Parts: sequence; C-alpha cells; structure tokens
Amino acid sequence: MLNQAITDIKRNYGKYELLRAVEDRKLPNRGQVKELIRELRCVMFAGYMEQEECLRSNLDDYVAYKCSSAIHKLRELVTIALECADHESFTHEELFAQAEDISCRFAARIPLLQELLLKDVQAGFDGDPAAKSKEEIIFCYPGFFAIFVYRIAHELYLSHVPFVPRMMTEYAHSGTGIDINPGATIGEYFFIDHGTGVVIGETTEIGNNVKLYQGVTLGALSTRKGQLLSDVKRHPTIGNNVTVYSNASILGGETVVGDNSTIGGGAFITSSVPENTRVNVGPTDPSGVNCVKS
Amino acid sequence: MLNQAITDIKRNYGKYELLRAVEDRKLPNRGQVKELIRELRCVMFAGYMEQEECLRSNLDDYVAYKCSSAIHKLRELVTIALECADHESFTHEELFAQAEDISCRFAARIPLLQELLLKDVQAGFDGDPAAKSKEEIIFCYPGFFAIFVYRIAHELYLSHVPFVPRMMTEYAHSGTGIDINPGATIGEYFFIDHGTGVVIGETTEIGNNVKLYQGVTLGALSTRKGQLLSDVKRHPTIGNNVTVYSNASILGGETVVGDNSTIGGGAFITSSVPENTRVNVGPTDPSGVNCVKS
Amino acid sequence: MLNQAITDIKRNYGKYELLRAVEDRKLPNRGQVKELIRELRCVMFAGYMEQEECLRSNLDDYVAYKCSSAIHKLRELVTIALECADHESFTHEELFAQAEDISCRFAARIPLLQELLLKDVQAGFDGDPAAKSKEEIIFCYPGFFAIFVYRIAHELYLSHVPFVPRMMTEYAHSGTGIDINPGATIGEYFFIDHGTGVVIGETTEIGNNVKLYQGVTLGALSTRKGQLLSDVKRHPTIGNNVTVYSNASILGGETVVGDNSTIGGGAFITSSVPENTRVNVGPTDPSGVNCVKS
Amino acid sequence: MLNQAITDIKRNYGKYELLRAVEDRKLPNRGQVKELIRELRCVMFAGYMEQEECLRSNLDDYVAYKCSSAIHKLRELVTIALECADHESFTHEELFAQAEDISCRFAARIPLLQELLLKDVQAGFDGDPAAKSKEEIIFCYPGFFAIFVYRIAHELYLSHVPFVPRMMTEYAHSGTGIDINPGATIGEYFFIDHGTGVVIGETTEIGNNVKLYQGVTLGALSTRKGQLLSDVKRHPTIGNNVTVYSNASILGGETVVGDNSTIGGGAFITSSVPENTRVNVGPTDPSGVNCVKS
Amino acid sequence: MLNQAITDIKRNYGKYELLRAVEDRKLPNRGQVKELIRELRCVMFAGYMEQEECLRSNLDDYVAYKCSSAIHKLRELVTIALECADHESFTHEELFAQAEDISCRFAARIPLLQELLLKDVQAGFDGDPAAKSKEEIIFCYPGFFAIFVYRIAHELYLSHVPFVPRMMTEYAHSGTGIDINPGATIGEYFFIDHGTGVVIGETTEIGNNVKLYQGVTLGALSTRKGQLLSDVKRHPTIGNNVTVYSNASILGGETVVGDNSTIGGGAFITSSVPENTRVNVGPTDPSGVNCVKS
Amino acid sequence: MLNQAITDIKRNYGKYELLRAVEDRKLPNRGQVKELIRELRCVMFAGYMEQEECLRSNLDDYVAYKCSSAIHKLRELVTIALECADHESFTHEELFAQAEDISCRFAARIPLLQELLLKDVQAGFDGDPAAKSKEEIIFCYPGFFAIFVYRIAHELYLSHVPFVPRMMTEYAHSGTGIDINPGATIGEYFFIDHGTGVVIGETTEIGNNVKLYQGVTLGALSTRKGQLLSDVKRHPTIGNNVTVYSNASILGGETVVGDNSTIGGGAFITSSVPENTRVNVGPTDPSGVNCVKS
Repeated sequence: MLNQAITDIKRNYGKYELLRAVEDRKLPNRGQVKELIRELRCVMFAGYMEQEECLRSNLDDYVAYKCSSAIHKLRELVTIALECADHESFTHEELFAQAEDISCRFAARIPLLQELLLKDVQAGFDGDPAAKSKEEIIFCYPGFFAIFVYRIAHELYLSHVPFVPRMMTEYAHSGTGIDINPGATIGEYFFIDHGTGVVIGETTEIGNNVKLYQGVTLGALSTRKGQLLSDVKRHPTIGNNVTVYSNASILGGETVVGDNSTIGGGAFITSSVPENTRVNVGPTDPSGVNCVKS
Repeated sequence: MLNQAITDIKRNYGKYELLRAVEDRKLPNRGQVKELIRELRCVMFAGYMEQEECLRSNLDDYVAYKCSSAIHKLRELVTIALECADHESFTHEELFAQAEDISCRFAARIPLLQELLLKDVQAGFDGDPAAKSKEEIIFCYPGFFAIFVYRIAHELYLSHVPFVPRMMTEYAHSGTGIDINPGATIGEYFFIDHGTGVVIGETTEIGNNVKLYQGVTLGALSTRKGQLLSDVKRHPTIGNNVTVYSNASILGGETVVGDNSTIGGGAFITSSVPENTRVNVGPTDPSGVNCVKS
Repeated sequence: MLNQAITDIKRNYGKYELLRAVEDRKLPNRGQVKELIRELRCVMFAGYMEQEECLRSNLDDYVAYKCSSAIHKLRELVTIALECADHESFTHEELFAQAEDISCRFAARIPLLQELLLKDVQAGFDGDPAAKSKEEIIFCYPGFFAIFVYRIAHELYLSHVPFVPRMMTEYAHSGTGIDINPGATIGEYFFIDHGTGVVIGETTEIGNNVKLYQGVTLGALSTRKGQLLSDVKRHPTIGNNVTVYSNASILGGETVVGDNSTIGGGAFITSSVPENTRVNVGPTDPSGVNCVKS
Repeated sequence: MLNQAITDIKRNYGKYELLRAVEDRKLPNRGQVKELIRELRCVMFAGYMEQEECLRSNLDDYVAYKCSSAIHKLRELVTIALECADHESFTHEELFAQAEDISCRFAARIPLLQELLLKDVQAGFDGDPAAKSKEEIIFCYPGFFAIFVYRIAHELYLSHVPFVPRMMTEYAHSGTGIDINPGATIGEYFFIDHGTGVVIGETTEIGNNVKLYQGVTLGALSTRKGQLLSDVKRHPTIGNNVTVYSNASILGGETVVGDNSTIGGGAFITSSVPENTRVNVGPTDPSGVNCVKS
Repeated sequence: MLNQAITDIKRNYGKYELLRAVEDRKLPNRGQVKELIRELRCVMFAGYMEQEECLRSNLDDYVAYKCSSAIHKLRELVTIALECADHESFTHEELFAQAEDISCRFAARIPLLQELLLKDVQAGFDGDPAAKSKEEIIFCYPGFFAIFVYRIAHELYLSHVPFVPRMMTEYAHSGTGIDINPGATIGEYFFIDHGTGVVIGETTEIGNNVKLYQGVTLGALSTRKGQLLSDVKRHPTIGNNVTVYSNASILGGETVVGDNSTIGGGAFITSSVPENTRVNVGPTDPSGVNCVKS
Repeated sequence: MLNQAITDIKRNYGKYELLRAVEDRKLPNRGQVKELIRELRCVMFAGYMEQEECLRSNLDDYVAYKCSSAIHKLRELVTIALECADHESFTHEELFAQAEDISCRFAARIPLLQELLLKDVQAGFDGDPAAKSKEEIIFCYPGFFAIFVYRIAHELYLSHVPFVPRMMTEYAHSGTGIDINPGATIGEYFFIDHGTGVVIGETTEIGNNVKLYQGVTLGALSTRKGQLLSDVKRHPTIGNNVTVYSNASILGGETVVGDNSTIGGGAFITSSVPENTRVNVGPTDPSGVNCVKS
C-alpha cells in the first residue's frame, strides 16, 4: 500500500513539474531572512536585542561590523532571489552586480530608516496610554516590530527584489498577526496598536501621523479579476492625522480618507471620506428590536 | 512561605486528580506533531523546505524514504493518542493494529492530498493579484500552510484519531492566526488570503472554488448548550464558487450560502443566502448622522 | 557608501540617546520570560508539558524543586526590571529586597492561581462542544494558554513590577493572537474560544463565568489624549455570566454590560447594556437592497 | 555508478545480517548515557555543574527530584540494554522487573559512591602540587571525571547490565584519554594525574591510596587466545599505597605489585614486585654509546 | 590601550598576509566534515547510529537516499577543497568536474569499504576478550571508529583531495586519541585496542590481520630535513599477522616487521625484524640495582 | 529505598560542606571559557574559524569589535574567578578593578601573542613533512591548537588569575590529549606533532625552536611531598633547538637539556644532558635474548 502511494507521489512530481531540487537555483531561505532582520535590529537598536554584546566604548566598531555583516548577508540573499526569479535574461555576473547595487542603496537608506522608526516609536508612546516607556515599545510592542520589518521590506520592494520582501513581512505577520504588504506606502509617525488582524494591501498609501487598531483592513473591494489586477491600484489612500479604530474596513483603490478624519471601530468604508470627518458606526442599540430579555 | 505554597500546590494535585505522570499513558507530544508536519511537507513538496537535500537524481529514493519515515512517525503518534484516549476497551496489540491500519490508509491518501493541495495553490495564484508566482504560495503563504495542515488533520479526524488532528490545526493556528477545525469538510480549489482571525467550525461544509479573507467566521449561532451540542451540525454550509470577504460572519448549522454567491466584507449572516446572490453591508455613510466634523 | 551609512547611524545613536549598552542596567530578557512561564506550567500542570520528568512517586520533590527554581528565576527577573525602571530612588539592596518580597507574595498565590485555572479549564470544557476532554484544553487550547499567562502577569502587575507583565502577555499574544493587558481584572470560570484578535484593555473589569469569542475587543472609545489617560478607566466593565460572540466590540470606560447578558457577534457597544439582555446585530439581509443577483 | 554502489551496499546488509532497524530491540543511546552521567553529577555534586539551579534553601528538593529523575532514566536505559542483549530467555515484564531491581540497588549505593568520590578528591588534592583547591579537582580535573564515571559504571557492571557500563567509560575515555574498563576493582583514595593514555584492564585489582600518571598501562600480557580468555584474570593486582609513574606498564594476571611500592616512569613490569619496593628504569645514559655529539 | 592593541593586530594581518576573508575561496568546514562522516556511518551501518529512522521495510530507500545525499555532500566539500588549494590552474568548471569524478569513484568504493570494515569488526571481536558482541564494537569502540574514518579518508587521499582527508582523521584523532595519517596503507582485519596515543605515519604500510595497542607509534626516525622529506618513505612496513603491544615504537622508512612477528610492549624498534619473531623488552627487574627498599 | 538514598546524599552535603549553591560566588563556567577561546581565535585568525563573517572590506571593524567583545568577556570571567577564590580580602570594587587591570594588560599582549603564534605555525610547517600548507596547521593541527590555548592561558597565569588558566588548558587537553600546564614557560617557534599524551609540567622551561612528539613527558621526578612542593621547581629545563622524540620522558626540576640536543624516542632522562648531544635509546634487539621464534 505504501509502495503504491510512493509511486503515485512520484508520478505527481513528474506530472506537475513540482520538484525544486537542490541543483536548481535555490529558493531564498526563511532562516536567512530571519537572521538578516535580527541583525538589522542590532544595527539600528543596539543593546535592545538579547544576547548582543554592545558596549558604550565599542559602539562604533559594533555598528560598523554589524552593518557590514548585515549588508553582506543581504547581498547574498538578493543574489539568490534574483537568480531564482530570472536566470535567463542575465548572467550570474550581471545578477551579482544588481545585488551589489541594491544592497549598497539599501545601506545608504539605513540611517533614514532609523530616524523614521524613532518617529514611529514616538507616535506609539504618544498614542498609547498603556505604554510605560519608549523602550518598552522598541523591544516588546508587536505593532512596532511589524512596522520595523515593513520599512525594511518596502525598501527592497522598491528595488524590485523578488521573494525577499514578502518573506520578510510574512515573518512579521506570523509573529504579530499584522500583515503589511511590502508594496504599501506609509508616512511618518505611524503606529499600530494591538494589531492582530490588521491587513494593509499592496497599493495602499498612508500619510503621516496615522494610527491603526487591531483588525483594521485597508483592502481591495473585489479581487475577482485575479492576476489581471496585478498592476492596478486596488487599495485605499489614507491622509494625514487619521485614526482608524478597531475592525474598521476601508476598501477600494479609489477610496480616499481625507486628512484629520477618524474612522470609528467597525466602520465599513467603500467610498471616500472628506477631510476632518468623524465616521462612526451607530452603536448596536441595546434597547432596540434586536435586544430581547433572554 | 514557599513551603506553604508547595504544600498547597501538591494538595491541589491530589484534590483535582491533576497529575499526568510519565508512568501514565503519555500525551502526544507537540514536538512530534510539528516534526511530522515538516516531514509530510518534504514528501509532498520536496525541495521547497529549507535544509532538505533532494536531488533530481535521487527524487525517487528521497520520497520513498521520507514517506516511509513519516508514516512510521504517524503510526507511533497515533498509537500514543489511542492509548491515551482509551486504554481500557482495547489491548495494546489491538490499539497498535488500529494505528497501523489508520497509518496505511493515510499513506494511500497522500497522492490525492498532494493533487488537492496543488489545486489550492492554483486557486491562490488565480485569486491573489499580489501573488508573484505559485512557488511563493507554496513556501510563504500562511493561508496555504493552514490548508495544508488542515487537509492532513482532516484525514486523521475521519479515522477518529484522538488529540492529534486538533494539535495539528492548533499548531497551524499559532503560526497563521487561521483556526480550521479538523472536522470541517472543504472542497477543491480552496484559498484563504491574509487569513488572520479566520475561524472554520467543526461541522462546517465548504464546496469547491471557495475563497475566504481574513477575519471570516464560519461559526455557531450559540454554544450555550455546551457538550450537549457535540454531535449536532452547528456551523454553516457554503456552496461552490463562493467568496467571503474580510470579517464577514456566517453563523448557524442551518445556514446555507448558495453556489456562486458573494458575501461582502463585514456581513453578518445568520440565515441562508440563495444562489447567485451578492450580500453587501451598506457602507457606513460618511455623510450620515454618525459623521460629524471633528 | 557603507562608510557614510555607518557614520550616520552612529550619529543617530548620539543624537537620539538611543544606545542601551551592556554596561547599562540590562533590559529583562524575553528568553527568561519564556523560560519562567514554561517552568510555572510545570509547577501547576506537572506532566502536561513535553519532556518533563515527573513520576507519581516523586511528585512532591518535583513540585518543590520546580517551584523554588521558578521563584528564584522570578526574583532575578524582577530585580532586573526594578533596576531598569528606577535605579535612582533605591539602592541595589532595597531593590533586591523589593524583588524578594514580590516573589514571595507571588509564590503564596500560586495554589490559588492553580485552582482558578482549573475553573477556567472547566469553563472551557463546558462551553465548547468541540472540546473532547479537559486535558485537551490544558495542553493545546490557545485560549487557555493566554489566560494562564494573563493570570500570572496580572499578579506581577498588581505588585507594580515594570516591563515583565507586559512582556509575558505579549509572549502569549504572539503565539495566540489574544492580547490581554496584564492590568485587566478577570473573574472565575473565564473562557476564550478560538481567540485570534481578542483585545482586553488595561482597565477592563470582567466578572465570573464570562465567555469571549475570537475578535472581541474590550477597548477604549478614544485614545486621542494619549498619556494623559494613563490613569483613567478607559475600558468597559463586564458582569457575570456574560457571553460575547465573535468580533463584537464593547468600548469605553463607563460602558457596563450587566449580568447574564449576551452580546451577539459583530455588535458594536459604546453604552451600557442592562442585565439579562441579549444584544444582537440584525443580520445583513440577503433580500435587502444590498443584495443583487450577480 | 551510484546505483551499482547502492545495490551492493544493500546486498551487504542482507549477506552480513547487518541491519539494526528501529523495529528491532533498540540499542542503548549514547545521548541517554551522557545525560544520565550529567544528572548523576548534579545529584552528587550539586552546584558544580553549569546551568543547574540549586539553592541553599532548596537543596533537599533538588537532590530528591534529580535523584528520582536519574534513577528513572537509569531504569529505562537498563531495560533497553537487557532487552537488547537477551530478549529470548525472559519476558518483557521479567526484564523490566530486573531493571527495576538493578536501579534500586544502584540508588542505594549513591551515598557511598559520593563519599568514595570525596576521598578521591582528597587524594587528588594531596597528590598534586599543581592543584589549587579541591573544588578545582571536582569541576575541571579529567582524572577525577574518569574515576567518577568508572565508579558509576562499575556498579552497573557488577549488576551484569549489558552495554551501558562500557558506553559510560568510553564516553569518559573520549573526553579524557583515560580508559578504565568498568570491570576493574579500585579501592579508596584513587587518583590519576594528567591521565592521557592510561589503560586499566577488565580484571585489574587496585588497592587503596593508589596514584597513577599518564600513559600507565595495567594490561594483559597477551590476548592471542581472544574470546577464550574472557573469564580469565588477565590484568595485574596493585596493592595499597602504590604510585605508578608515567608510561609504566604492568602486565599479566599473575603480576602483583605489593603494598607501598613505587613503579618508576617507563618501567615495564611483567612479574610480581614485592612490598615496599621502588622499581626504577635506569635513566638513558647521556654519556653512553647512544650519545653522540651531533 | 585596547585601541593600540587593535591597531597592532590589524597591522599584523597586513604584515603577515594572514586574513582569510569570506570573499576568498572558503576553507572546507569542520562541521561539514563531521556531518559527512555521520552520514556515511548511516549508509554503511544503518540503525547503529542514534536517532536515525531505518525500518526493515524501507532499508532500500533509506540506503539509496542517504547514499546519494552523502555523495552530494562529498562533492560539495571536494569542490571547496580543490578551489581552495588550486584555483589558478583550473576553471571552476574543471574543478567541479574533478570533484564529480572523485565523488563517483568514492561511491563505487563504498560497498568494498563496508565489507572491509566488517572484517575489522570481526578482528576486533576475535582479538579482545573484553568485547561482549560485535555490535558493541561497531557502535562504541573508539578503535573501530578511528579505522572507519581512516578508511574513508584514505580513499580521498588516493584521489588527491586536499585538506579533507586530514580534517577527517583529525576529527577522529580528537575523539579517540588515535592519529592515523590518511596516507597510510592498511590491510584487512585491522584492529586497534584502547588506542589512545597511537600514531600511524603517512608512509606506513600495514599488512593483513594486524593488531595494535594503545600508545604504539609507527613513525619516522627523524624529521630534521622537514619539507624536503615530504615525498620520501619515512615510516615502517608491517607484515601480516603482526601484533604490536602497548607503547611500542617502530620507526624508520626502511624498517620492516616480518609476517607473524610480535612486538612486545614498550619495544623500541629502529631496524627490521624478521618473520616469525617475538621481540620483547626485558622486564624492568625489580630485584636489580634500580630497586631499593623505600 | 530511594528515600533512604536521598536522605543519605543530603546528609553528605552537610557533613562534607559540599554544596556550591547558586547564591554562593559562582564558579567560572566552562562554556564561557570555551566561548572566550573561540572569540580570541576570531580576533587573531580572522576567517579561519567556521561561520564567522569577516570581509576584506570590514576587517578593521571586525577585529575592533571582536577584540573589545572578547576583552569584555575576559573581564567578566576574571571577576568571577577572583571573587570565587578570594572574596574576603577585597571588596567587589577592588576585585573588579583588578579584573579590569588584568584584562587591559592581556589586550595589550594580543598583538605579540599573534606574532608568536605565527612563528609557531612556521615551526610546524618547517618541521612536519606531512604538512601541506601553513593554513592547514592553523585550522586543523591539534598541536597548534594546544599551543594557542596555552599561550593565552599563560598570560593569565602570570597575572595570577585563579581557575581560568587551568580551565583553558584542560579544555585544550580534552580535545587534543596535550596537557600543558599554564605555568610552563615556552619560547618561540614551538611545535608539537601528533601530541596525544604530551604532558608539560607547571615549572617547565622551554627555549626557542623546540619540537616535541606525542607522548613526551616533561615532568616531576616524584610528587610524594604533595602540596609542600607547590612552589618548588619540579620540572625540567629544555634549551634552544632541542627535539624530543615520541614517548621520551625528561623528569626533575634540576634536569637541564642543553641547546641543540636531541632526545630519542622512548628515552628516560632524569639528569642533565649537555649541549649538542644526541641521546638515543638502544633499539630493542630483535636478535637478542628477548627474541624468540614464536
């Protein structure tokens, strides 16, 4: 019985061209992605990570070493990803040169990412009465971790690196329940509280000083056309100083939420909301028809 | 003070018959469950997993070895689970024979599961404009991982294996936020996008070509009667070609969503929906009473 | 290019006083938090954990040893946390004495926590028709794990331990999608089913025999005032014998749900609900205007 | 070419009845042996081992727990070994009862072993001018480690446990270069300095207060008769208060070194040495014929 | 002070051209060597290794898979070693082809190595009265482990693989104290008992049925000429059926020990020994001048 | 029976004051010692170690970071060791200052150690015809590893650090069979070939260009006076350009081997040897009385 099963499984491999053998161009490895993110946290937030040895007196060397090491790892990962996605249009040397170029550009962006992330920390502290200190946000807030990973992944997305940006955000998704597509565009002072169930679609645009709560979807209205939609703006645009409370959905590529607006919890938005507007779902009336003495 | 605490804790063990000592029939081990799932991924998707050595030239041996090894592990796990759940009605030999029988039947199903899963991959690729390739779905989509685990767990659920099916789906739940009860019945070409917060109850039935988004609940209307309900159909029936958008809830064992219907995001469905119907929640009106200039 | 990046990153460290060097007071370590929780599970549920060696004949020694070891680890962790949060008002000796005192008080509470948790297990078994046994709840229900961690963290919150309680609940949040702030007050026989997306805010009060489903938010109405709200009751009060179905939101510090009430799935509650009331969201009407033949 | 190799390898398995499959009675596992030794060090020398949590206040529980845990592991290992060596003469229940009996007898011997080992520590401190403290001997002298393992293995050898005693001493051999057969009989206050290359044969008898240096062989004169010699005394008898300096060989089952004698470095002894004798190799004469001006 | 040290260390790197950076051709990795040896033990002695899953029913697949996997790893290691040693005379493709060729030839030799090793096991069992079974020799005799590793390394030595053969035998040396140069030529039915301190030089030749004891040196007379001697036969030739007892030294490239001879413990041989000869060191006479009543 | 054993074991703890509880001053940890040695290898031989990421372009940062990190670890280890050995004569602050001072002095010595070690590598290459390259010596010769560890440990020995130097050399001893006491004084261009069984005593002095083979003992004549000898020169003095062949013993604190002398294999030297002398053991005569036709 086992023999028949094995025969059929192997037939499936042939029939569906399913095998990815180790002689083939390798897929980027999830472990490498995780390690790279860990190392970039060391670079940008030295001393907040566990088990890392950074001293006041060797900060310079620590950062320099960790940074060059991380960029080296990034270049390797990007090379694998480029080869995996398209090994016919370019020679190995050309792909390696592309990976080198992408990695260097990423490195140049790190200081700006670091500053951007410190603004996110500030937003988190200002926005959450339960936060006891900014440090707590850096080392134990899942919302901040998801944003950290997104900001890195987004840089690589802009450089057209295949596979890796999505692997990064899925890694954050798995640990936080927050799913930010690396293609989304997100401004300064961004904060996600609690965060489980948040989905931010690929073509979403978000302004500055935006705060989201758990369960918020910034999504598409319909995906029935499937891959035909792959280059179309399908997700909403959120202005500056917008707060979206828990479980609200804002859907559609033409939907714009204007500056300074607030979207109440559970709201379901499929068309644009002007500036300075507060959209609240009417509370489920406990004295209404749906309320019965049980 | 510590002594008093220790005394009281030990008294609790006696009072509540709480201890599961290693001399007792062991509980199935979460690590074993995880390893079995990992190995079944190697069998069905050789080369997509990290660190596994599959070559074009040794695919046959690789699959044969991994498959027999996985079935061996499964048999051990099922034996433990059977003994744990009912060691009084059967001798060890009878339980072992049952485990052997269950494992063989599972093995015979693997090739079909593999084909079924490839259809799920196809559904994912067709349904998600953000998917860059089918490979990406296999190795980094959480929705696909949850379905993969569910399809395995469901086979064991049908064979009345105790503990293990639920441990499997809880393992997937922990990493993806998608909670599919192994008892649910799910057709071909199934896809879950983003997925965090999805709950699919034990007696749910789902047809072919169904797509779910994050936060969808296919649940019970009420569980007040508790264990009395354990054999009752409590969860809905979903037809073919149905799409359920984010955060919609479809509740109740008599609720049927007909073929080709679409349930809009945030919908709350407690009675049946005919075929070919689109059910949308009216958008929270930004010009209505709940909107105020803030 | 890398050199410029490194220079800028280092400048950021100075500019934003970002560094936490190992010479500084250390941050509590996430690994330690995890280990402590694991060990407390051994103390309270001996034999349910993997790989632990508890025999019927050595239960007494096992519990005594594991308990003293766990309390020792707790004291170390609390000392680190106290020093980290406030090393200026107290000497090391004073902080150590505080940590000792807190740990002893915690130890004295363990037997009561154990009994409380057994009541939660009972509630889970009674409330979930899909539960096959109470054991299954202890060792594989995410809802129970989140409650277990919360009950420990809450004790430490009441003792004003900085950092650690939040790290504990974030650890449970990461694995279960259930985010219970350690400050919340929760009665006996508490159960959370499925659980992904549940948020229970810091000043929430929950009575006895309460059951929550996935996606339930017990949250604040608004957090615009940020840190100014840090001592204000911002989250609701839930009475005894209340069930809150999936994705319902109950918001606001003055919102009270009376005893024996039921909040239907998807309900959005921002004002109080009297006792013995059932609040249901009207179902999205499939025969209404939003339903079109597609 | 690989195929031919594989075919031939498999043919060898059949031809030489070489396979030990997992369905067969398992071999005792080297990892288990190592872990048992580690745990027995915790029992007898609490606090000297790394990473173990023993407090002054919980010594009693620590020892009680570690001891019962170690004896449990021992019983499992002995059961495996007995089944592996002889599964035809006895039922599983009989073998289990034997293992239980052996383990209990071993447990009863632990306090005496502990005292014996403390005498070995004393001998080491008294005999080595380079030893800075007795603690140093316990936690970093390879000679003491080899004696520790031997004394445990010898107990099991006396109980006719198959495989395990030898696996234990080979584990010590691998880390220290000291090869003591578990069958040897060794008195109190035994010390081995440096130790690399020491061999002590199965039928060796050693009195009290004996000190050996590196490279000492207490061996057989000839092993030409092979397995025919397996029950014959083949190795020497060493009296009390004997010192054997480096690289000396004392060979033969009838060779006796009398009390209070000293065997000089490099000596080659094949017949008995009376009491109170000093046997020195004459120094290689640097003025003799073998010395030439180079 | 640290700064000065760092400056000087870096100056040393430049001055002595010491750096082996990761951009350079990598050195073969000790971990890979260890893993390859482990895997080859699985191929040749399936089921004797810990934690490996070989069933009677899947032996064929197990061997086929493990064998192809091991050969794949070998090819990678050989490629690294060839590139590391000589990357100027050959292109990467040529080196890869060489590695492929070497690996294939090695694979073809495995069945013969397996048979050869089974003869070594037989020799061990016949020659050691303390051996309880042949299985014990396979899985816990250090002498057999050293021979196993040597026989593999020797094959690669004959194929002129750089670095790897020596790394293999040094790995065995570290765990057993037995140092067999991979260049030595050793016949059938070879056995080393105890083994610590055995050294077998690069140009040694050993016949069939030879048995060595601990501390035996088969070495060079002098190495004063250093690298000039690198192609000269410097080590002895040992005939068939020869036993060399503990700590004997046989030195020099022209020294031949004839068939059926026995070299006694501690003997020092620098010229040839005829066939059928027994060479014994006279025992250190305990009644002679060097013996004094102490 | 177990209870009696446990009681007796605990009584032994009291009776022999055996406990080292975690509240006591901790013993230096073997794992830390190992890690420190690994890190110092990275500092001095960057790129030869496995898994370390050193690039040509970041050598400076790599060395600076690794060096400061290693010195930090050293300081921690020395502090623990000092407190453990003598916590009564000094305050914690004084001991910390001592540790700081010792670590700084060690750091200043690293560049010189590095140069010294490169000379040892050169000596190894020149002296071993089997060496294929200098790189091979650095990364896989056990003799070089033992010397590397000794040179580090000796520096700390000179600074009177307790425990740690001996733990270091015992770590090397365990892996190589070479036991060099950290107190020995050893000149430039030192080489040990094969090495198993080499013992170099605490008060040994060795000149430049000395080469030792396996099994060489540079030891004491007698240790009968035990701890009374702890400050006496007990081990020999070896001049420059001396080679000592395998298994030779040179014993006694007044024994001097003059410059340019050679000690033959198996020689037993207890009195001084003039300069330019070759001391050979006469070969065991195969035609003499001890040779019999067997």
